[in-house]
Amino acid sequence: MSEAAVVTIEAEDPVLETVFAQEMVRQMRAIDTYGTYDNWPVEKILAPFVLTKEQKREIPVVGDPDEIVMSRVKAFYNAISAMIEKECGLMAVPMLNLTHEGFGRALITVGKLVVMDKTLRDVHRFSFPTLSKMKDEADKLLSVALELVGKHSEVAGL
Amino acid sequence: MSEAAVVTIEAEDPVLETVFAQEMVRQMRAIDTYGTYDNWPVEKILAPFVLTKEQKREIPVVGDPDEIVMSRVKAFYNAISAMIEKECGLMAVPMLNLTHEGFGRALITVGKLVVMDKTLRDVHRFSFPTLSKMKDEADKLLSVALELVGKHSEVAGL
Repeated sequence: MSEAAVVTIEAEDPVLETVFAQEMVRQMRAIDTYGTYDNWPVEKILAPFVLTKEQKREIPVVGDPDEIVMSRVKAFYNAISAMIEKECGLMAVPMLNLTHEGFGRALITVGKLVVMDKTLRDVHRFSFPTLSKMKDEADKLLSVALELVGKHSEVAGL
Repeated sequence: MSEAAVVTIEAEDPVLETVFAQEMVRQMRAIDTYGTYDNWPVEKILAPFVLTKEQKREIPVVGDPDEIVMSRVKAFYNAISAMIEKECGLMAVPMLNLTHEGFGRALITVGKLVVMDKTLRDVHRFSFPTLSKMKDEADKLLSVALELVGKHSEVAGL
């Protein structure tokens, strides 16, 4: 599967206009050391995050996920961190830990408060069925995190 | 430097009798898949944690630290986690994250509370000047963690 060739997001997708999609693009450009994405449309930059069931199945889950996949997972949780930070005004720190064979844990802390704690598995296949589903997941994580910050503001401020 | 040959801890060191040293030995045995340590005295098992200034200087800090060093760092923070758990009765989860060239972050969470958060650098040289200093560091981390759990028990119980 040549990933660059698979553009699974429509250029007219309204989700591309959202703050989340813009933050994702910003995160992806941040890790694009060689400027490969400079002339790419946003739907092409975000395309690897959207895979059909068949495309997912084609990716083997043997061994540790490669650096490209890892950087994508990081970009996703970095984007959520950045959005938490923007909303609550406190620094949010993401931390990604892979243990073995694509298993791991993604964590976001604000002060001494854990605002997101997700167990990861099959990281090799990290993706979403649609861009809209990806945004839904981000929104869910964001709202849970902000609720926690609101409820435990003392710990979040430590 | 042949590490196995450098036994820097006295067999009579009273620190070896403490709960901390016993927990450290337990952690080291847990990762000793091939039973290499089975017939080793405890002072030999813990010896790699104690290095003189000169011994530390001899270790190059170029590139990523190897698996053996990493497992030692993990053993140290796992031991602290285990002690926190014993003291407060809540599950403590350690997480170690190396970014690049021996820099990283060690974190222990209890519930949604971050009870320890340490920036690591020169992980290649992870060690202490004496066994007693190692125990002091562990005691300090433990007492700060337990104080946090006591103060923010609601978040720690989440």
